[in-house]
Amino acid sequence: MVTKIILDCDPGHDDAVALLLAVGNPDIELVGVTTVGGNQSLDKVTYNARAVLGKAHAAEVPVRAGCGRPLIRPLKDAADIHGETGLDGVELPVPSRPLDEGHAVNWIIDTIMNSESGSITLVPTGPLTNIAMAVRLEPRIVERVKEVVLMGGGYHVGNCGPVAEFNIFTDPEAAHIVFNAPWHRLTMIGLDLTHQALCTPEVQRRIEGIGTDLAWFVSGLMDFFRKAYRNDQSFVDPPVHDPCTIAYLIDPGIITTRRCPIDVELRGELTVGMTVADLNGLEPSEEECRTQVATKLDFGRFWALVEDAIRTIG
Amino acid sequence: MVTKIILDCDPGHDDAVALLLAVGNPDIELVGVTTVGGNQSLDKVTYNARAVLGKAHAAEVPVRAGCGRPLIRPLKDAADIHGETGLDGVELPVPSRPLDEGHAVNWIIDTIMNSESGSITLVPTGPLTNIAMAVRLEPRIVERVKEVVLMGGGYHVGNCGPVAEFNIFTDPEAAHIVFNAPWHRLTMIGLDLTHQALCTPEVQRRIEGIGTDLAWFVSGLMDFFRKAYRNDQSFVDPPVHDPCTIAYLIDPGIITTRRCPIDVELRGELTVGMTVADLNGLEPSEEECRTQVATKLDFGRFWALVEDAIRTIG
Amino acid sequence: MVTKIILDCDPGHDDAVALLLAVGNPDIELVGVTTVGGNQSLDKVTYNARAVLGKAHAAEVPVRAGCGRPLIRPLKDAADIHGETGLDGVELPVPSRPLDEGHAVNWIIDTIMNSESGSITLVPTGPLTNIAMAVRLEPRIVERVKEVVLMGGGYHVGNCGPVAEFNIFTDPEAAHIVFNAPWHRLTMIGLDLTHQALCTPEVQRRIEGIGTDLAWFVSGLMDFFRKAYRNDQSFVDPPVHDPCTIAYLIDPGIITTRRCPIDVELRGELTVGMTVADLNGLEPSEEECRTQVATKLDFGRFWALVEDAIRTIG
Amino acid sequence: MVTKIILDCDPGHDDAVALLLAVGNPDIELVGVTTVGGNQSLDKVTYNARAVLGKAHAAEVPVRAGCGRPLIRPLKDAADIHGETGLDGVELPVPSRPLDEGHAVNWIIDTIMNSESGSITLVPTGPLTNIAMAVRLEPRIVERVKEVVLMGGGYHVGNCGPVAEFNIFTDPEAAHIVFNAPWHRLTMIGLDLTHQALCTPEVQRRIEGIGTDLAWFVSGLMDFFRKAYRNDQSFVDPPVHDPCTIAYLIDPGIITTRRCPIDVELRGELTVGMTVADLNGLEPSEEECRTQVATKLDFGRFWALVEDAIRTIG
Repeated sequence: MVTKIILDCDPGHDDAVALLLAVGNPDIELVGVTTVGGNQSLDKVTYNARAVLGKAHAAEVPVRAGCGRPLIRPLKDAADIHGETGLDGVELPVPSRPLDEGHAVNWIIDTIMNSESGSITLVPTGPLTNIAMAVRLEPRIVERVKEVVLMGGGYHVGNCGPVAEFNIFTDPEAAHIVFNAPWHRLTMIGLDLTHQALCTPEVQRRIEGIGTDLAWFVSGLMDFFRKAYRNDQSFVDPPVHDPCTIAYLIDPGIITTRRCPIDVELRGELTVGMTVADLNGLEPSEEECRTQVATKLDFGRFWALVEDAIRTIG
Repeated sequence: MVTKIILDCDPGHDDAVALLLAVGNPDIELVGVTTVGGNQSLDKVTYNARAVLGKAHAAEVPVRAGCGRPLIRPLKDAADIHGETGLDGVELPVPSRPLDEGHAVNWIIDTIMNSESGSITLVPTGPLTNIAMAVRLEPRIVERVKEVVLMGGGYHVGNCGPVAEFNIFTDPEAAHIVFNAPWHRLTMIGLDLTHQALCTPEVQRRIEGIGTDLAWFVSGLMDFFRKAYRNDQSFVDPPVHDPCTIAYLIDPGIITTRRCPIDVELRGELTVGMTVADLNGLEPSEEECRTQVATKLDFGRFWALVEDAIRTIG
Repeated sequence: MVTKIILDCDPGHDDAVALLLAVGNPDIELVGVTTVGGNQSLDKVTYNARAVLGKAHAAEVPVRAGCGRPLIRPLKDAADIHGETGLDGVELPVPSRPLDEGHAVNWIIDTIMNSESGSITLVPTGPLTNIAMAVRLEPRIVERVKEVVLMGGGYHVGNCGPVAEFNIFTDPEAAHIVFNAPWHRLTMIGLDLTHQALCTPEVQRRIEGIGTDLAWFVSGLMDFFRKAYRNDQSFVDPPVHDPCTIAYLIDPGIITTRRCPIDVELRGELTVGMTVADLNGLEPSEEECRTQVATKLDFGRFWALVEDAIRTIG
Repeated sequence: MVTKIILDCDPGHDDAVALLLAVGNPDIELVGVTTVGGNQSLDKVTYNARAVLGKAHAAEVPVRAGCGRPLIRPLKDAADIHGETGLDGVELPVPSRPLDEGHAVNWIIDTIMNSESGSITLVPTGPLTNIAMAVRLEPRIVERVKEVVLMGGGYHVGNCGPVAEFNIFTDPEAAHIVFNAPWHRLTMIGLDLTHQALCTPEVQRRIEGIGTDLAWFVSGLMDFFRKAYRNDQSFVDPPVHDPCTIAYLIDPGIITTRRCPIDVELRGELTVGMTVADLNGLEPSEEECRTQVATKLDFGRFWALVEDAIRTIG
């Protein structure tokens, strides 16, 4: 069965791979893309989303711009990791399709309210500002969404200080709203999982082996991403966070999960933006707990999905 | 010159008087009313707004419902002060006009974006959820609004604990957004001022002396309000907060103000929701500071305006 | 009746005047002086205390050094107001009496435990670190102390940001301990009061008129203090905070007080260190409430006491 | 070489085992025991410490009582885990030695200041109130202590909510002081480690096999502790936290450690009392970082040490 998704993102090198996986995999229908200020300014990430979709021959997918800044705190982008354009390291094609009209938040609401209930899955891979705004503007979307699968947070790992992750740290109040809304299910694909999704040289060589222009585009992204992660975070290979969300929707068997209560710390001096997961005691039942964290990635099957998508797009 | 206002409110006994003053005074054009969960649930305060407008022969004024709960924290209403209906103590007429369609937040944005820049004044008299949502959804409204005159906060007085006021305490994050947006001017009519706007028995007798059905309706509201304030807050006479905003717009000479930086405390254990005004040192210039607090009310002229409005409505 | 006091201070220009008032007034018996890091480093304020006592022919009064830094936060001194020595602007005599042995905190405990219960009054005029340490090390001192009269805080005024005062802001955790201990009575002489204790030119001229070396010493202190307050806090005349505590003990009629609950904010972003006084509603009875704030100073009688003390010392 | 330790504890079932290991192992010299309110009230844990030492034929070890409550927050004991006496489940002998005079905090200071510098190791296994008070009262102890090996905290595990551990959660401000003091080395033996020190039925049977009265005493403690941990924390076997500190001092090879910065969260709503360890990036050098966390226990060698100690005491 095809999963209809709205991808709410801030491309970003790994967001770009998520876009390609969503476009190139036959089990995903990308209903639309919405953008949010995060890795770079709203203007830049919106341009990037349109350009990547063009590169992927998917100009039919609408793109709408959303919120340019977090609810309460000022935006601090991730130019240290994604460069000045947000997609440094490759040449981007000029987008063929104009930016679609209307605000991302209103479009998310309208799309969910006008689709069959339970048919749309939300996939946020940036700060949760747009999703939080939509929930507060039209709370009825919560019960109409099939599920939320988001990249963000970490139960034991951080990349903005010891315990917070960039997407959540950037807009903790929005994350607090989203994690506390009564979705049918919310899956947090956090750093614990995505730090397993490393683009090793072997993986990159296999992608290059596809031989298409798009494959070399991805390889160029990965070259820059590797350097940035080496310089900034002491990683040997870069973790390609965002496509893990799409991979999980294509084949849940690729990612092991554990149900647990999750909340977002808003007030700590050292811990603001931490996704506090309560992993003590026994795993709660589905009735007791609608949130879960991703714990283990099937590395081989994950990258096989990404390669397939690049090959399929051609 | 007539001042065009959007009144964003949660009636509420004193909101009702603000509505009457806005309807009955020739210098105010009430472009529309929007409602927000606060003194009572969104459904109840929206009904109340429509009913009061009906009572004031102002069914031409559109009413739109906005956000039913604060951004982050759960709603705790003020039923202790306003009763189960939000307007206990009087019989409300059934509203003649149906609720207008569309969300208050989108209507606020559209109205401001489609009016001449600098022509609309925002008058929030409830929690600031709607205004904050509008600012984040469409930041360009901020420079197009003429000014903001709000009831809320207090620099030396609180009514939700020692130092916080109900509207701000109910949604401090929204207040933080609103107080920190770069409006041309923001005037905080806080408890320091509104605790001077007491409906004394003399005032109430003069209102009753008008003799109309509407005058007795207001008197009924005041009877309930006096009892509630005596029981709950040790007041002899009830402070009629919200119409002070309208009075200030009609005749700024009625209220003394002082420019000072104002911010909203989000994290304190004892002080969350406090409007922290920096009154140390000399008063800053208009260029240095766009926010001001109300300090002193001309009691006689204030109540004269209210009486006039009730008389004018008839 | 003579009041036996322990003066816990960090001289400081106004602490120096407090020392002189305590030494020179016959109704005060200065059992001992303890020092705490605050206005300047512990070493400097301890030297200053000894030097001022020498200047006041009171070398019999023991001085013991206490804590050099706040409980949790790092010390930021007030060199902007008191200069590099903590008593800039005058020449200090070399102290004749060596520093007394033993830690101030242990000496405070021993003195209280070995004196008749109810005979000792604590007068802290610096950060509350020593007193808090003593309370936690020997909780039984609390019921044996007659009362606490401290300089610090403010219910409507701040001098470290909009709402916090230096002594409390410097060690809010210590202040939290002290304000929450069940003393028989605690009187907060805060900025609301001490900003009335201005050393006007007239006052200073009267002091100079005493003509003694000590009088000119005080005048020198006031010259420096006036300049510092003009430059740093936009005051015309400097507020001489600390002796207000002693004046209140000599003659309570000089200072009007109001009973109210007081607590110290530890977590606010804008309000940390604020002394949150609940002044809403009616004044509680002595049985309901053991804390009170100072509200109004009898300016003339206050300065007359200071002049008398300087004259008495000779 | 014999390690001279001060054991600062709040017995407590696992504190009792720590006492036995310290008494019974020839490589540890127990200079003295100090007590702190924690698992139970100060009176009860002090009695327990004396009784356990008596049971271990170690009445020559002095015991001094310290602080009965945390610095800022009220004490909430762990009666749910340790019972009404703090050592429920066994009959305690009446202590033969009277309680030693003087406050634990002053005794800790005097002992360290009067011993050769670098000769004393501090082993806190309860809330860190006493140690924090000693550090603030006499900061020079910090450079004279050989090292601190404490039971408390957890970098990935909590037992008071999702991420905080009892000892740190009970007095986070004291923990903040202790973790931030510049000790030569501080080793945090947290729940990550101590949840590996489970008293399995096999372990308990081996202890019982020793056959002495003391062995059956320990078995009785473990029976109660197992039941408490089953009921309260969903554990099959109880983790015997506190003796891990002593075991580490006897034979560091039993416990794997990792250097990392550690700080204590004081303000979080969900995370207050969390020991925030920064495990990102490469392990810092000894020069860069004086704090370390315990990660892995050699289960067999640990319990062999405990058995040996029980056997040695006889």
